[in-house]
Amino acid sequence: MNERWERIRHRMHEIIFEADTPAGRVFDLTLLVLILLSVLIVILESVPSLASQFGPFFEQVEWMFTILFTIEFVLRLISVRRPLGYLFSFFGLVDLLSILPGYVGLFMVGGNELMAVRILRLIRIFRILKLGEYTAASRLLAYSLRESRAKIAVFFVTILSLVVVLGAMMYVVEGRTNGFESIPLSIYWAVITITTVGYGDIVPATAAGKFIATLIMMLGYVIIAVPTGIVAVSISAASSRLAVSTQACPNCSRQGHDPDAVYCKYCGAKL
Amino acid sequence: MNERWERIRHRMHEIIFEADTPAGRVFDLTLLVLILLSVLIVILESVPSLASQFGPFFEQVEWMFTILFTIEFVLRLISVRRPLGYLFSFFGLVDLLSILPGYVGLFMVGGNELMAVRILRLIRIFRILKLGEYTAASRLLAYSLRESRAKIAVFFVTILSLVVVLGAMMYVVEGRTNGFESIPLSIYWAVITITTVGYGDIVPATAAGKFIATLIMMLGYVIIAVPTGIVAVSISAASSRLAVSTQACPNCSRQGHDPDAVYCKYCGAKL
Amino acid sequence: MNERWERIRHRMHEIIFEADTPAGRVFDLTLLVLILLSVLIVILESVPSLASQFGPFFEQVEWMFTILFTIEFVLRLISVRRPLGYLFSFFGLVDLLSILPGYVGLFMVGGNELMAVRILRLIRIFRILKLGEYTAASRLLAYSLRESRAKIAVFFVTILSLVVVLGAMMYVVEGRTNGFESIPLSIYWAVITITTVGYGDIVPATAAGKFIATLIMMLGYVIIAVPTGIVAVSISAASSRLAVSTQACPNCSRQGHDPDAVYCKYCGAKL
Amino acid sequence: MNERWERIRHRMHEIIFEADTPAGRVFDLTLLVLILLSVLIVILESVPSLASQFGPFFEQVEWMFTILFTIEFVLRLISVRRPLGYLFSFFGLVDLLSILPGYVGLFMVGGNELMAVRILRLIRIFRILKLGEYTAASRLLAYSLRESRAKIAVFFVTILSLVVVLGAMMYVVEGRTNGFESIPLSIYWAVITITTVGYGDIVPATAAGKFIATLIMMLGYVIIAVPTGIVAVSISAASSRLAVSTQACPNCSRQGHDPDAVYCKYCGAKL
Repeated sequence: MNERWERIRHRMHEIIFEADTPAGRVFDLTLLVLILLSVLIVILESVPSLASQFGPFFEQVEWMFTILFTIEFVLRLISVRRPLGYLFSFFGLVDLLSILPGYVGLFMVGGNELMAVRILRLIRIFRILKLGEYTAASRLLAYSLRESRAKIAVFFVTILSLVVVLGAMMYVVEGRTNGFESIPLSIYWAVITITTVGYGDIVPATAAGKFIATLIMMLGYVIIAVPTGIVAVSISAASSRLAVSTQACPNCSRQGHDPDAVYCKYCGAKL
Repeated sequence: MNERWERIRHRMHEIIFEADTPAGRVFDLTLLVLILLSVLIVILESVPSLASQFGPFFEQVEWMFTILFTIEFVLRLISVRRPLGYLFSFFGLVDLLSILPGYVGLFMVGGNELMAVRILRLIRIFRILKLGEYTAASRLLAYSLRESRAKIAVFFVTILSLVVVLGAMMYVVEGRTNGFESIPLSIYWAVITITTVGYGDIVPATAAGKFIATLIMMLGYVIIAVPTGIVAVSISAASSRLAVSTQACPNCSRQGHDPDAVYCKYCGAKL
Repeated sequence: MNERWERIRHRMHEIIFEADTPAGRVFDLTLLVLILLSVLIVILESVPSLASQFGPFFEQVEWMFTILFTIEFVLRLISVRRPLGYLFSFFGLVDLLSILPGYVGLFMVGGNELMAVRILRLIRIFRILKLGEYTAASRLLAYSLRESRAKIAVFFVTILSLVVVLGAMMYVVEGRTNGFESIPLSIYWAVITITTVGYGDIVPATAAGKFIATLIMMLGYVIIAVPTGIVAVSISAASSRLAVSTQACPNCSRQGHDPDAVYCKYCGAKL
Repeated sequence: MNERWERIRHRMHEIIFEADTPAGRVFDLTLLVLILLSVLIVILESVPSLASQFGPFFEQVEWMFTILFTIEFVLRLISVRRPLGYLFSFFGLVDLLSILPGYVGLFMVGGNELMAVRILRLIRIFRILKLGEYTAASRLLAYSLRESRAKIAVFFVTILSLVVVLGAMMYVVEGRTNGFESIPLSIYWAVITITTVGYGDIVPATAAGKFIATLIMMLGYVIIAVPTGIVAVSISAASSRLAVSTQACPNCSRQGHDPDAVYCKYCGAKL
C-alpha cells in the first residue's frame, strides 16, 4: 500500500507542481484563472461604492477562494516529499499568506490590512508563469538585470548620497516655512525631482531654491541616462551572447558563427 | 459591356487603392489633405468659444466632408472585387465610422460622442501613408517593435503585478483619509509614480507613505531603463540586419552575410 | 587706394568672421562675453524687484550694448563682399534683431515683447561656437540627429495621431465638467501624460478616465523608449563610423582597422 | 627614537589611509558605520517631532561623533607626511567641515545651517568606498561618464540656450498675470517642462501658451533621448574596450586587439 501511496503522491506532484503533463497544464491554467479572479475580487472589494452594494457577495466569493486555496495548499503539503521544506520556502509562505487572512478574519476585525495581504496571491502567478521563465524573453531580461547588478548598485549608492546632500541643502535654503520641513522631507523632494516624477506637492518658493532645483533637474537629465545605458548595454550583450552560437569551426576552430550558419564564414569548412 | 465595366473598375481600383499611377498619387494627396482638414474642423468645433461663433459654418463644412467621404466610400465599395470583404476589414470599418456620425446626427442628438467618433478619420491617413511604410525608417521601427514583443510582454506582466502589490500596500499604509480611497485608485497612483508622470493629484501624506513612495521612485528609475534597453537593442539589431544583407552568395544567392565573411555561411562557396 | 581698401576689408573680414588669427580669436571671445552679458541684463531686467531698483542702470547698459552691437553690425556689413547676402542670411537677421529693439523702443512703448526679442542675441553665440562645431563631439551629435531624422519623423506622425485620438477619447469620457473642456485641451493633457511631464493641472476625475489614463501612461512607458533607442543606435553607428579608419590594407585591401593600427589585422601587412 | 616614531607613523598611515591590512579594513569599516550613523542622527534631528522629543539625546550623540571624528582628524594630521597638503586637499577640507560645526555651535547659535554642514560627512564614505573604486563596475561607469564629457557639454550648452529662448518666449506669451512673472521664472518653468519633471506650480493658462508648451514637451521627448544615447554608447564602448583587451601580443606584448584579429595590429607579429 505504501508503494501505491507513493505513486499517487508522485502523480499529484506531477499535476500540482509540474506542467509537463496535460493534467498539470490544466491544473496550472485553472489555478491562474482562480488567482486572477480572487485578486480582482480583493481589488473591487476595496472600492467603497462596490463594497456597500455587493458586500455579502464579495464575502461569499472570498470564502470560496479561501477554501479552494486551502485545499490546494493541503494537497501541496501532502504531495511534496518534505512538507516543512515547502512550507518555509518563499512560495510556501506566499501560499500560506494567501489563505491565512480568511481564517484570521473569523476571530478579529481588521479590514484593510487583512485584505491587502490577500493581494499577495498575485505573486503566486509567477510560479505558474515559471513555465514562461524558460522562454527566451524573460530569461534574457532576468539575465541582463543580474549581469548589471554591480553597476546598478554603484549607481544607487551615488544617487542616494546625492539626494541626501541635495535634500539637506534645500532644507537650509528653503527652510521650514516653504514646506521643506525636515531633511527627510527634503530628501523625498530631491528624489521626486531627480527621478523626474515631479508631484508638485513640495516646490521651491525662494529664488535661490528655484535655482538649485533647476540645477538638480539638469543633473537628473544626465543621471537618468545612466541606468538606461547600463541596462541597454547589458541586454545587448546578453542578446548577442545567447544568440551567437558557441560552435567552433572544425577546420580553423574560429567561433562567432550565426546560429543558422552551415559553413564556417572564415575558411568555408563545413561546421 | 461587362469587360468594359471590369476595365473601369480596375482603373478605379488603381486610382483609389494604389499609388503607383500619377492619378493614384493625386487622389491620395487630395484625400490626405481632406482628412486632415476634416479632423481639424472636428477639433476646432469642440472649443466652446469657436463653436458658439462659427457653429453654422462648422456644420456646413462638416456636411461637405461627410458627403465627399460618402462618395469615396461608395467608390471604394464599387471598385473592389469583394465589397463585403472590404466593408468588414479594419480600414473598411474606419471608413464607415468616418461618415456614419453625420447621418446618425440627423435622427438623434448626441453632441460629444458623435463628434469624437469622427476623429477616427485620422486613422485613415495611415492607409495613405502606407506608401511610406516601405521607407526604411518606418519598416525598421515596426520591425523592431515586433521583434521585442515577447520581451515587452514579460516586462508588462511584471510591472502590472508590481503596481497592483505596491498600490495595495499604499492603500493600507496611507488609508482612505489621505486620498488613497481604494486599491484601484492606489494602483492608479502607483502607475503615475512608477512611470514618472507624477500628476500630484494623489500624494502620500504620512511619513511611512512617503518613504515607500521614495523607494518606488528609485525602483522606477531602473525599471524605466528596461523598455528603453529592449527597444534600443532591438532597433540596433534590426539596423544591422537590414544594413548587412546587401551581398548575395554567387552560388546559392542567399543574403545575410556578415561584412567580414569570406565564404557563404549557407553553402560554403566563396563570396 | 581701392586695393588698399580691399586689403583693409579682407583684414576686417578675417578678424570679424574668422577665428584663425589671434586678432580673430580675441574678437570672438570679446563678442561672446558681451553677448552673454547683454542676455544676462535682459533676463535680470525682467525681474520686477530688480527692474524697479536698477531700472535706469539696466537702461544705460542696454544702450551701451545696442551701440556696440550696432558698430559690430555695420563693420560686418562693410567687411563682407555682398552686404545684402549677409543681411538676409540667418545670422544677418539675428544680428539685426539684436539691435533693432533698442531703436524701436525710442519711438514706441512695448515692454515685454521688445525685451524678449533681445534674448535672441543668445543665438549669436552659436556662430562663435561654430569653431567648436569642428570638435568631434558636436559633429557627432549633429550627424547622429541628422541620420535618425527619418525615423524620428515617422515616430512623430504616429505620436501626433495617437495623442489626437486619445485626447478626443478623454474629451468624451471625462467631459467638460472635469476640466477636459475641448479636444485641443484634451490633446494638451494627452501630451502632458504621454511625455511623462505630468503637470497635474488637468487630471481625470472619473473611474473610466483614470483607467484610460493608466493605459496611456503604461503605453507612454514603452513609447518613450523609441526615440531613445533611435538616437542611441544612431550615436553608436556614428561613433564607430567616425572612429574606424577608412584605411584599406595595401596587401589584402580589407578595411575596418582601428585608427591606431600599424599592421593589417587580417594578413599582417604594413598599412 | 626618530626612527621608531617614523615606524609608528607609517603603521598609523597604513591603518588610517590604506585598506590592505586587516587593521586597515577594520578601521575603514568602523569609520563607515560611524559616518552613516552620524548622518542618520543629523537627518533625524531635523524632524521637528523627533527633535522636541529626543533633543538632548541627539545633542549628546552628536558630541560623541564630533569628538570621535576630531580624534580621527588629529590622527590623520599626525600620520601623514605633509599635514598641510592633507589639510587643503578635498577630503582634508571635508574632514574639517565634519567636525567644525560642533565647535562653532559652542560660540554662536545657528541651527539649520550648521546642521546641514554636518551632512557633508556623507561625502567621506566615498574615500572609504574608494576601495570599491577598483571594482569593474564603478571604474566602468566613471570611465564612461568621463569619455562622454565633451558630448554632454555640447548637449548642455544647446539645452541651456534652448530653455533661455523658450523661457523668454513663454514670458512674452503668458505674461506676468499667469505666473510667468519674470524670464528667470519662465526659464525655471522651461527646465521643469523639458526635463519632464512637471511640478505643475507654474502652468500655461492661455491657448497660445499651451500650444507652445505642447511643442516643448514633444521636443523634450526627443531631447531626453540624447544624453541616454550618449551614455549608453559610452558604456557600451567602455565595456567592450575593457572586455576585449585580454590577449597580449607574444612579440610586443601590447593589448587591445579585436577578437577576430590574427596578426598584432601594432607590430605585425602573429597573435
